[in-house]
Amino acid sequence: MFTAPTKDMLFNIEHISGWNDLMALPAYDALDLEDAAAVLEEFGRFCAEMIAPLNASGDEVGAQYDQGRVTMPDGFATAYASFVEMGWQSLPHPESFGGQGMPRCVGAAATEMLNAANMSFALCPLLTDGAIEALLTAGSDTQKETYLAKLVSGAWSGTMNLTEPQAGSDLARVKSKAVPQNDGTYHITGTKIFITYGEHDMSENTIHLVLARTPDAPSGVKGISLFLVPKFMVNADGTLGDRNAVTCVSIEHKLGVKASPTAILEFEGATGFLIGDENSGLSYMFEMMNSARYAVGLQGVAIAERAYQQALSFAKERVQSAPVDRSTSEAVTIVHHPDVRRLLARMQVLTEGGRALTAYAAGWQDMARHAATPQEREQATAASEFLTPLVKGYCTENGVEVASAGVQVHGGMGFIEETGAAQHYRDARILPIYEGTTAIQANDLLGRKTLRDGGTTAMWMADQIIETERQLATGSDAAKAVGVRLSMAREAFQAVVNHLVSTTRDTPNAAYGGAVPYLMLAGNLMSGWQLAKSLLVAERELTAGKDNEFMTAKIASARFYADHILCDVETQSQRILEGSDSLLSVAL
Amino acid sequence: MFTAPTKDMLFNIEHISGWNDLMALPAYDALDLEDAAAVLEEFGRFCAEMIAPLNASGDEVGAQYDQGRVTMPDGFATAYASFVEMGWQSLPHPESFGGQGMPRCVGAAATEMLNAANMSFALCPLLTDGAIEALLTAGSDTQKETYLAKLVSGAWSGTMNLTEPQAGSDLARVKSKAVPQNDGTYHITGTKIFITYGEHDMSENTIHLVLARTPDAPSGVKGISLFLVPKFMVNADGTLGDRNAVTCVSIEHKLGVKASPTAILEFEGATGFLIGDENSGLSYMFEMMNSARYAVGLQGVAIAERAYQQALSFAKERVQSAPVDRSTSEAVTIVHHPDVRRLLARMQVLTEGGRALTAYAAGWQDMARHAATPQEREQATAASEFLTPLVKGYCTENGVEVASAGVQVHGGMGFIEETGAAQHYRDARILPIYEGTTAIQANDLLGRKTLRDGGTTAMWMADQIIETERQLATGSDAAKAVGVRLSMAREAFQAVVNHLVSTTRDTPNAAYGGAVPYLMLAGNLMSGWQLAKSLLVAERELTAGKDNEFMTAKIASARFYADHILCDVETQSQRILEGSDSLLSVAL
Repeated sequence: MFTAPTKDMLFNIEHISGWNDLMALPAYDALDLEDAAAVLEEFGRFCAEMIAPLNASGDEVGAQYDQGRVTMPDGFATAYASFVEMGWQSLPHPESFGGQGMPRCVGAAATEMLNAANMSFALCPLLTDGAIEALLTAGSDTQKETYLAKLVSGAWSGTMNLTEPQAGSDLARVKSKAVPQNDGTYHITGTKIFITYGEHDMSENTIHLVLARTPDAPSGVKGISLFLVPKFMVNADGTLGDRNAVTCVSIEHKLGVKASPTAILEFEGATGFLIGDENSGLSYMFEMMNSARYAVGLQGVAIAERAYQQALSFAKERVQSAPVDRSTSEAVTIVHHPDVRRLLARMQVLTEGGRALTAYAAGWQDMARHAATPQEREQATAASEFLTPLVKGYCTENGVEVASAGVQVHGGMGFIEETGAAQHYRDARILPIYEGTTAIQANDLLGRKTLRDGGTTAMWMADQIIETERQLATGSDAAKAVGVRLSMAREAFQAVVNHLVSTTRDTPNAAYGGAVPYLMLAGNLMSGWQLAKSLLVAERELTAGKDNEFMTAKIASARFYADHILCDVETQSQRILEGSDSLLSVAL
Repeated sequence: MFTAPTKDMLFNIEHISGWNDLMALPAYDALDLEDAAAVLEEFGRFCAEMIAPLNASGDEVGAQYDQGRVTMPDGFATAYASFVEMGWQSLPHPESFGGQGMPRCVGAAATEMLNAANMSFALCPLLTDGAIEALLTAGSDTQKETYLAKLVSGAWSGTMNLTEPQAGSDLARVKSKAVPQNDGTYHITGTKIFITYGEHDMSENTIHLVLARTPDAPSGVKGISLFLVPKFMVNADGTLGDRNAVTCVSIEHKLGVKASPTAILEFEGATGFLIGDENSGLSYMFEMMNSARYAVGLQGVAIAERAYQQALSFAKERVQSAPVDRSTSEAVTIVHHPDVRRLLARMQVLTEGGRALTAYAAGWQDMARHAATPQEREQATAASEFLTPLVKGYCTENGVEVASAGVQVHGGMGFIEETGAAQHYRDARILPIYEGTTAIQANDLLGRKTLRDGGTTAMWMADQIIETERQLATGSDAAKAVGVRLSMAREAFQAVVNHLVSTTRDTPNAAYGGAVPYLMLAGNLMSGWQLAKSLLVAERELTAGKDNEFMTAKIASARFYADHILCDVETQSQRILEGSDSLLSVAL
């Protein structure tokens, strides 16, 4: 049983992504919030009815490999065909290639829904989105013409081929070769591992985007080029031709997302097409990766939502022990036991806070593309880029915590696979790893997103928070209480940013040893801030007599987050400001 | 590859369990530390060579059920036979029943080793230990005569049968029936679930200890009696007779510890023997459970040690990316990357801190049994009982965190089952659940161990910590730095104890909502305190020129723990002192 949290998403789209500001932009002039709501409600039903029921069975059977072919679990191919037929892949993509041109904030909600329903299934469209992004960024007109419409419809799927056995996060070590041919194509040779949906039977064709080196390329990351390698060659009329020389030699036996085939691909002189310029592959791949990293953050929220729904429903049914307040001597449903409540409350607000953070980031992504002036686009880009590693790192680490808490709420039943809670715990564990571990996100946050501009964007964020603090300070008691916590957290953030900006050059090991604590601190603050803004909105809506139950719950969530989660910011700041000596001297 | 951490264990036995004080007791007059060391070194080799290699293969195959029989994975029965033949089961048990009479602090180290080598395997002896404990406490002379020697040797194994489908943690709901027969036996009827090693092919006989109700028993926990139900009846000459009417109807399909069979047992008028008095079963079971809870805490340390060793060895081999300090432009082993160091450091000190806590608790367990005066035994019992839920709760929650961090250190390889890191993550997840969830430990800590004596034992603990703070304050810079953190944490602990003692009666839901934070806070403090004491010892040993490398590392661990882990105590105290309103008002 899964129900899409459409209402919370629409609240965020309206109030956190900045719907009215977005709709004032020429790019979106025709869109009503009601239309977006209708789309999301329909997609939510589709996810709940068609996709979610395949989650457990897909996990049990897993993707199956046999002699180069991968068979998806029963029901996946049919469900994917419906997904394509109903046009869901096209939701956030440009109308010029058959897309529906929905803003990112709507697309993000849809991505979360699909992943909550079935993370293994959702990985296929997620990778296709990345391939579309890369082609839009750097593809030639012919390439766009040939591939984009099919990818946007979902008829063809996409993959990202970065990792090689000797090169995981370290792309400088990529050694796949690309030898230019007389006809302008390249022959690609090498082994790529960890290729999500590298081989499967749901789409008609698979478009591999592959990092490789041309013969005279410089060493390191400056010599990497990006190639498009179709599984089946595409004829001039758009029909499919010969099988290309890329073979799936096996798939991995994994802890989770077992229905998502993780392929080892062998390229043996496969025909590839250069995307953009030679030796510029890394920057195109980064474009694709940023989109994918943000989407993986959404997966973190999604798995948390799914685990929360399951745990809450169990806690409201399972009868066990009399309550500690002795209000009855009879056994009660466990949701009445204070620590079950505490676990569920943490799960709920980490999910809600993460979702609000993704909505906030999505608003900046939309602004970065479509804001009226270059200055506004630049500011929006800076904000969006600052937030991407937070969304990826913070929301995925929380996905693991929430899924683990979900097992705990179930007690002994949680450890039994048939219950389903364990699957979320297994599935979630990949999220802080793939598309760059939390440490890699943290290095990006510290190096590229904080130090490079001398902390300007980070401090600009802090200024926006101070504005919220002002509003909270003149509000209700709840608002004031949240405001106090938010101020303390924001001050800790500023102190940390100042510390890192002034010390990283001289003591890089000490500073980077604090990078993940900095990421978790910043993610926590930014999430708590969105919930604090939500509280202000909810109080206004309550005053206007709107949706009492939902708005009251929103306020309670913001308060719980402030009291129980936001307080971690101060501990994290101590680790960064005072803990580097002991980190560097511990004996391993 | 697993190496038993014998050196750290011996350090703890000598300096944290209080070896010299223990050896001054009449019960232990014949024992040298060298003898204990020799035993542990030999057992460590046995675990590493004979038991650890079966861990991954046991997980892959799992225990297999067929028509009432359970077949253990290849190698388990042979390894168990060696374990019995070499007398390892008997290590901590009384010499009067064939045991070796080793103190608990030595037995605890052995239990940790065996569990680190192979948690699934180790569960069989662990449950047998619990059955021995219960029989020593409440068994009749005939029962002791008939069963103890065989259990102490390990020839027979033991089980605990508490849980029924409708009664997990809530023993008031147990409804298995025990009908008295004319010959003084009882016929036991009912279904028990989650019975670890309830059926298997490693031991000659299995002695089930079963909670059930006699026909006229009062309702609730006051009407529960404890019965001994052998799988095979035992003839007067000690040989095995008929199969008893208890059948394994299936085993569970679990997230982890897959080689440990978790049985559903059907008792159909099985012959049972009353242990102790009717309707007193709960208190005997508590005896057994306390022993088992402490042992599960050891499992938490054990899985952390195993996960740490594996992650450290990977981090020292895996080459990836140039270091952030640019000391070379070449890729280096990932242990040089600051966040990998941070993850490994956390893993290490959580493991070391947990181990020190278990050693400290074991010292009190020994004192509780053998101290010279009733007053000393009473104080030791209070300390030991206060520490049991901390060992169980804190060490198992950390076991999950450390195993998860172990996956993270491996990056993408961690998600591949063949790497082995994922198994620890799966295995660890049961630890905060079975033998009472962390919440149940926390309720025990708050209700029975803190409120019942008005906080006396908790405050007595705080006084002991203050004594350590005094020594730290006059020591080295490192000692002073650790002392500051320890003082802050101890003050937070005292504030929380005072708060809970004064508020629980009037606002039980608020107080119990802080029970797990209180447990985690107290466990953290008690672990950090043991490491602070270790620092003082290590500095003395260094001055005496002893074992430079080990003692320097010990000091560094204590510092890292103080700066990075102990600081969580303050955040936890905020949640308890200021977070209950928002906890109780959050909408679920």
